[in-house]
Amino acid sequence: MRFSQLYAPTLREAPADADLVSIKLLIRAGFVRKVASGVYMYLPLGLRVLKKIENIVREEMDRIGCQEALMPIIQPAELWHESGRWDDYGPEMMKLKDRHERDFTLGPTHEEMITSVVRNELRSYRQLPLCIYQIAPKYRDEIRPRFGLMRAREFLMKDAYSFHSSWESLDESYKKFYEAYSKIMERIGLKYLVVEADSGAIGGKESHEFNVLAKNGESTLFYCECGYAASDEKAEYMIPEPEVARIDPPPLELVETPGVRTVEEVARFLGRKTFEIVKSLVFKGKDGYVMALIRGDQDLNESKLRAHLGDQTLRLAEPNEVYDLFRVPIGFVGPIGIPENVKIVADHSVKPLANFVVGGMKEGYHYINACYERDFKIKEWTDLKMVKEGDPCPKCGRPLRSTRGIELGHIFKLGTKYSEKMNGYFTNVNGESKPYIMGCYGWGISRTMSASVEQLHDKNGIIWPLSIAPYQIIITILNTSDEKIKKTGEELYELLQEKGYEVLFDDRDTSPGAKFKDADLIGIPLRITVGRKIKEGKLELKLRTSEAQDVEIEEGYSRVLEKVDQLLAEYNPGDVLEVE
Amino acid sequence: MRFSQLYAPTLREAPADADLVSIKLLIRAGFVRKVASGVYMYLPLGLRVLKKIENIVREEMDRIGCQEALMPIIQPAELWHESGRWDDYGPEMMKLKDRHERDFTLGPTHEEMITSVVRNELRSYRQLPLCIYQIAPKYRDEIRPRFGLMRAREFLMKDAYSFHSSWESLDESYKKFYEAYSKIMERIGLKYLVVEADSGAIGGKESHEFNVLAKNGESTLFYCECGYAASDEKAEYMIPEPEVARIDPPPLELVETPGVRTVEEVARFLGRKTFEIVKSLVFKGKDGYVMALIRGDQDLNESKLRAHLGDQTLRLAEPNEVYDLFRVPIGFVGPIGIPENVKIVADHSVKPLANFVVGGMKEGYHYINACYERDFKIKEWTDLKMVKEGDPCPKCGRPLRSTRGIELGHIFKLGTKYSEKMNGYFTNVNGESKPYIMGCYGWGISRTMSASVEQLHDKNGIIWPLSIAPYQIIITILNTSDEKIKKTGEELYELLQEKGYEVLFDDRDTSPGAKFKDADLIGIPLRITVGRKIKEGKLELKLRTSEAQDVEIEEGYSRVLEKVDQLLAEYNPGDVLEVE
Repeated sequence: MRFSQLYAPTLREAPADADLVSIKLLIRAGFVRKVASGVYMYLPLGLRVLKKIENIVREEMDRIGCQEALMPIIQPAELWHESGRWDDYGPEMMKLKDRHERDFTLGPTHEEMITSVVRNELRSYRQLPLCIYQIAPKYRDEIRPRFGLMRAREFLMKDAYSFHSSWESLDESYKKFYEAYSKIMERIGLKYLVVEADSGAIGGKESHEFNVLAKNGESTLFYCECGYAASDEKAEYMIPEPEVARIDPPPLELVETPGVRTVEEVARFLGRKTFEIVKSLVFKGKDGYVMALIRGDQDLNESKLRAHLGDQTLRLAEPNEVYDLFRVPIGFVGPIGIPENVKIVADHSVKPLANFVVGGMKEGYHYINACYERDFKIKEWTDLKMVKEGDPCPKCGRPLRSTRGIELGHIFKLGTKYSEKMNGYFTNVNGESKPYIMGCYGWGISRTMSASVEQLHDKNGIIWPLSIAPYQIIITILNTSDEKIKKTGEELYELLQEKGYEVLFDDRDTSPGAKFKDADLIGIPLRITVGRKIKEGKLELKLRTSEAQDVEIEEGYSRVLEKVDQLLAEYNPGDVLEVE
Repeated sequence: MRFSQLYAPTLREAPADADLVSIKLLIRAGFVRKVASGVYMYLPLGLRVLKKIENIVREEMDRIGCQEALMPIIQPAELWHESGRWDDYGPEMMKLKDRHERDFTLGPTHEEMITSVVRNELRSYRQLPLCIYQIAPKYRDEIRPRFGLMRAREFLMKDAYSFHSSWESLDESYKKFYEAYSKIMERIGLKYLVVEADSGAIGGKESHEFNVLAKNGESTLFYCECGYAASDEKAEYMIPEPEVARIDPPPLELVETPGVRTVEEVARFLGRKTFEIVKSLVFKGKDGYVMALIRGDQDLNESKLRAHLGDQTLRLAEPNEVYDLFRVPIGFVGPIGIPENVKIVADHSVKPLANFVVGGMKEGYHYINACYERDFKIKEWTDLKMVKEGDPCPKCGRPLRSTRGIELGHIFKLGTKYSEKMNGYFTNVNGESKPYIMGCYGWGISRTMSASVEQLHDKNGIIWPLSIAPYQIIITILNTSDEKIKKTGEELYELLQEKGYEVLFDDRDTSPGAKFKDADLIGIPLRITVGRKIKEGKLELKLRTSEAQDVEIEEGYSRVLEKVDQLLAEYNPGDVLEVE
């Protein structure tokens, strides 16, 4: 491609609302343009990268026998009523009505649709397993779209769905996807971490996330030398053997704690440590209210509570809801004397305590010397703790470490959640009717583009891995009116394309400085500069991540071509850059 | 691909609502599934065809220097307010609101969006011309979706937009697209006709449609031996030199014509020919009401009237609107004595008449012996006639012929319609600010799949052209438990794939009859059957469109491979099938 023809306007400054280095660079370098909040257009360079990511993902899907199809973007509401998710999915689902006032959604995911299609045609265990994928736009109406392509409202996903007659068959498919996703990460060439993950609103019994490591990644990940790794929502720790609670604590006493609300304030006021206080957090779920108890120096992990109760609609109750329930402001709520219909769930951290502080259930008061069993009952104990760096690894006990990442892939064992609700049944080998056992597997295609830039860039611009660079080579000619320079550039442009390289030929009539800046900003792995040194029979080769070197021009350019091959084979931007 | 693994459930019967042979066959053969009215899923076979069509179109776009990009599907309403089309586009535009109640549309076309992006970056004539295309889903909320993929509500389009600094540059681009579109038709291998077309709501000064010929095509096309061809909306004819109207006709007379409304009824009642009657049709446009006059034996072409008046919102007035306007039922409306604010436009066919019948402007009455100039004034004469087969060609006068087609491509010279409204200006060579001169160029990708089937099929199923067949070859083994048959099939499957063919290997454990039926239904160009004749060292080759022939199996299959090459080179389904 001739740069003079390419539509890739580069900008000196990013728009003010670009909030991450990746979206700043992608806009400045002419890969994308913002059209509306969270809605982007891909310019030719951006689309080239997108297609390369798509193709790597497609090849790995095909390799594991997953078949490509294409589902509609607009989905009739009826399907989502069947699964019960029309109401559950919340305001992130984009909805519309057609001219006949029938409801549709712009699909955020396609479990309902694929199940509705295959249930009419997959009737026997002999037709299973089946695995279908597609690469198509998806929608999520973020309340505040941000981070460029990472939290966009329209984005490109690969989503796959598998159907099985047994859990063993699902396990096999899950393993294949795990390996295919690892392969995709390796082929793209990004540093990554696979973690155990919470399956959230999608449901199911097991799930893993594939994260690209990046300093400003959205997700906090925990990992250990032993190989354990989990997302913060899912991460566990080695729970210490609980000591038996001390017997004979002093009697329960209600003390005045005026205007004192937070754990820290209460601790300071009463002269206690924060671990001597028990926080009482009230949640609202589909079956009513739940009170979760956890030690004052710990944070509660809502995902664990949701998973424990099997209720994905669970959320922290609003202050007014809590007041209506207990007639007490939120800072003075505690477990003593609450109505029986409010279920208590306690974190293991409460177990060793025998003499602690809880809310007094009276404005301006707390109980001291509280003691479970004696003063109130706890029937459900579970792990509700948000793990911290340094907590003992649940597998080996060594201290957990943390890092930040960007989630690109997510695989789920769904089980029979959708097939049961949507009447997706097959006849098994014994002639019995059974629901399909399902898996689903997502990969963020447009997100991958941003994540790569987020991990690989420097102060001059983007650094593309060779696998997804829009062009592998840029030929920069420094003086378009010098016939020899121009001829050399043109000859190399022809030759390198014949050899199968994708080449951008910077034939623009602009300054050398501007050309070098653009080449760095766009992030092409190898730059070939044809300039003044041509008088000495030399040109310059420069990898994006290392110093330039001169190469002598011979008849037929054999030395140049050899050096190009060699440099591109050596190119490994991940080795050069520091990633936490 | 092994058929035993492929997700392509074939059906004995098409669903009752499949209304065209193409959609019936595409569903039965397992290429697509209907998900909602006018909304389809592409199964693996369907997607393969779609991708092949996409790639042919993509290659021809790239060849003429058009650059691929990708625009969002959801478009903010603001852009459409700028162009004025938010209200003009009508109920076919799908609209939605986001969670902040901001309006969006699911893009039916992208003139607004591409103009809004480039206007910030294309500022000098030096950056022009520019041509951008994309291949992406489009939306049209048809009131009654039908004809399968042809009038779907979600469909795949290639849309391209070009920006120029002069009309000459636009003309050049238009010519390139004309040639590229012809090339696409040739490469796919369908019989087609390019016609002059009306540019309708898109606007602009010139446009052509690329139609695939098909017996049940939606469009009526007129053509002549001399090369003239036009859509029915656009078609002209050689207008005869008008004779001067007879002078001294008998005086105007109002006669009673009780209960007589249509042209035929009036003619019969009054003992006249239909060409002695003048029809008065009332239209409502953005500037009020218009009365169009045409001879009783002719049909009025609304597109011509819209183009003449430059008003795309023009539509036939409702009976109640006509009554409110004239206080006369619709069958008795005529041009005599109408208010001055109703403009009269007359077709050339009225010109030679001097003694005709028109509505009496009184219920149950008509005027006879009417005469323009004497009894009422006609200021605007134009061609409003819907051309018929046999009318004289406007270029050479020979009788026009008609055929039916399916529109796949449509190219438009837009001019400055969008750039002026949306502030898309550049600085020309003289330093003056000028609006871009634009072109736009659409191609229906998913429509192409249906159109191909509509043109090429027989009673047994689809007949794919080689260029877009999901697989070029199907190997059918007739007895999966016969080791020799199986081994031969497997070896050929390997060999043909090595040679670069796309092969479907029917290894299913079903009857030979079912396999043959599926192969014909799916429409693979070449079938290789390995069956009982293997004992005589033979297998069978059969093109979809001709008789089977035996070929001897030799060591290394050289004779078979040679014959495969030869048959596929000869394959030309269009030659075999009768297309009107």
